[in-house]
Amino acid sequence: MASRPLANLPVDAARIAADIEALADITEPGRPWTRRAFSPLFLEGRAYIERRMQDAGLETRIDHAGNLIGRRAGKKGGGTLILGSHSDTVPEGGRFDGIAGLIAALEVARSLSDKDIELDHDLEVIDFLAEEVSVFGVSCIGSRGMTGQRPEAWLSRSADGRDLAAGITEVGGDVTMASARQDIKGFLELHIEQGTVLEREGVNIGMVTAISGITRVEIVVEGRADHAGTTTMPFRKDALVAASEIVLSVREAGLELSKTPGHFTATVGEFAIEPNAANVVPSKVRMLIDARAEFPADMELFCARVETIAADTAERWGVTIATPERISHVVATPCDAGLLQILEHAADGSGTSHRRMASGAGHDTGWIAKVAPAAMIFIPCKDGRSHCADEWAETDDIALGTAVLFQAVQEMDRQPTEKS
Amino acid sequence: MASRPLANLPVDAARIAADIEALADITEPGRPWTRRAFSPLFLEGRAYIERRMQDAGLETRIDHAGNLIGRRAGKKGGGTLILGSHSDTVPEGGRFDGIAGLIAALEVARSLSDKDIELDHDLEVIDFLAEEVSVFGVSCIGSRGMTGQRPEAWLSRSADGRDLAAGITEVGGDVTMASARQDIKGFLELHIEQGTVLEREGVNIGMVTAISGITRVEIVVEGRADHAGTTTMPFRKDALVAASEIVLSVREAGLELSKTPGHFTATVGEFAIEPNAANVVPSKVRMLIDARAEFPADMELFCARVETIAADTAERWGVTIATPERISHVVATPCDAGLLQILEHAADGSGTSHRRMASGAGHDTGWIAKVAPAAMIFIPCKDGRSHCADEWAETDDIALGTAVLFQAVQEMDRQPTEKS
Repeated sequence: MASRPLANLPVDAARIAADIEALADITEPGRPWTRRAFSPLFLEGRAYIERRMQDAGLETRIDHAGNLIGRRAGKKGGGTLILGSHSDTVPEGGRFDGIAGLIAALEVARSLSDKDIELDHDLEVIDFLAEEVSVFGVSCIGSRGMTGQRPEAWLSRSADGRDLAAGITEVGGDVTMASARQDIKGFLELHIEQGTVLEREGVNIGMVTAISGITRVEIVVEGRADHAGTTTMPFRKDALVAASEIVLSVREAGLELSKTPGHFTATVGEFAIEPNAANVVPSKVRMLIDARAEFPADMELFCARVETIAADTAERWGVTIATPERISHVVATPCDAGLLQILEHAADGSGTSHRRMASGAGHDTGWIAKVAPAAMIFIPCKDGRSHCADEWAETDDIALGTAVLFQAVQEMDRQPTEKS
Repeated sequence: MASRPLANLPVDAARIAADIEALADITEPGRPWTRRAFSPLFLEGRAYIERRMQDAGLETRIDHAGNLIGRRAGKKGGGTLILGSHSDTVPEGGRFDGIAGLIAALEVARSLSDKDIELDHDLEVIDFLAEEVSVFGVSCIGSRGMTGQRPEAWLSRSADGRDLAAGITEVGGDVTMASARQDIKGFLELHIEQGTVLEREGVNIGMVTAISGITRVEIVVEGRADHAGTTTMPFRKDALVAASEIVLSVREAGLELSKTPGHFTATVGEFAIEPNAANVVPSKVRMLIDARAEFPADMELFCARVETIAADTAERWGVTIATPERISHVVATPCDAGLLQILEHAADGSGTSHRRMASGAGHDTGWIAKVAPAAMIFIPCKDGRSHCADEWAETDDIALGTAVLFQAVQEMDRQPTEKS
């Protein structure tokens, strides 16, 4: 996939691959690749990462939010440049989601030192705590905590006999010291795409324009439980038949929006019927739509369309459908335009192909971007697979992305701080 | 709904209503109407029925299969005429399913005695054991047991700490004495329709031509679990989208067959998706189709159509669907043509409107009909509702049906026995 000579890269691909492999070995045996946040294996993985940070000359610490940070002091200070991602996985997850970005960040710091490049600004490599949904049932705990966006109520969520506050303490954090960092000059994250756009198009880097908004819409279809053998077919109120039509219509509506500019997806991921008995006409279906939009206007269009679909379906099949309810709603977060330009300039300088695209998934970048300049790059992954054992990214692709970060961070270092 | 003067009926409508009401009172408190087979309430209900049988001059016994039988000796013998249904209910069931037919049978015996009518043949009123699916997970235990059609393996099915053999012993049966009755000259059952045909058409009696066959077909759709936010919509293998199209196609195929002569229904009653997570494209759907056909040829047509639907859907959506599997298959059982004529003659004689129709539900009649002349009549029920608390049948409709049985059983008594 690489379109330029890898031999010229300013970063060490073999070193990246070795670190990713070493972390992969720290997994639940027989259940690769599992290293969930707050688990002993997670701490074992972090011990490895911390050693490697120290090997690279970084000064390590755990911040109040439970993030592992490796710091490289700059000549002048005046704001911190941050590179990072996460080392935790979902159960039976992959070796690259989060890890590739974290090791890329570490490699940038290493390569700077290898080349005796001193930056004006301090540089931090961060392993954010629990980006994935952990046993506590929530995600992005570290990036939200570091930026003052972790809901207070989360701290009393409990799992495995202790609450989240205690969980953060276990990994070395201290929620009583919570504060929001004000010193972030710029943040960059590398991540596998978790989609197939780059792979299909043969493009090296995706420049992430925004972290899509996520809206979850619940639809409940209420029909009538009738005897499956005796109730003649035209006289039924079959909730499953009506719900099936909704699934197809929601897909159609999502597909239409996905063809217009800006990322859009719509998925019915949760779907359950009642009474779920072989000889009873289904009386009730509850479904949950997951919609992702780069542009908030698309989300509004979609939600309006879903209301129409629900109303039309209810009328056609004689079932009852309450107005679809938005049970959660996170608006899209654009990445920083200036950082995007720096990243594109860095890629152009090394002859690396790239395209702009939005992230359909949530990332730590989304939370950092709400309080500071932040941007993100995607690298290709095989068949778009992620959160599964066969998740795969080529070392060359990770190294190319790392090289772009390496150039970009030096360019960021040269930018005047806005406040100054 | 009645189209003739009820005052002239040869049966006592008030007596029927009183018995049905008395049995309704024997229910789990706060969970009407529940009197499940093998429960203490079931035995309490049977004690009531046995007293009423004895009040009517019937000689009562429990047969080896656990059926409660009230016998009225005939002048000549030479085969037994049987009327019956069942007194057990599903959980939170109704007051009429089974009970109406059982009390109608009892009322026929009472009315014969009231009018000092002696029959040549013995007459039995039978409360079949566990027509509904009981705690042992199977149905029609009594009618199958009485006719030698109860699978031996059923006896070791266990529930609540004992096996079915012990359960039958508890109600007074004795599985070690199992045998198949050879003396049934004719069997008739009255039952609520559990559908809306009679109600919609304003017809008093449904003459049941057959107990429909039941085939259950399992379809498993296998797609691919992808990230709901990152996997662009045209590149998915969404098992739920494909399965939704199958649900609609199966309904369409069933509807078409329901418009041709002969009862036909098709229902997807069981439907479950995996992983059933909001942010994951569904990877798998398992569904179970319940198809009921009066004519076996319709069932074959339907099953072939389902195979085509599955293959077409798999191709269109890029998912994998194994050949749909028939996991159970009970062929349709026609009712006895001679008994149908007798029933129609009896209805015509009293000016009661009637139409032929098949039963979409299974009944004890279906098992008796496999070994002896048997037939069944339906009476209207409100909105086709059954197996629920608002199941309802008008006393006048039950009484009209009972009057038809009253005339028919006398006509049956006059028929020469085939063997003689």
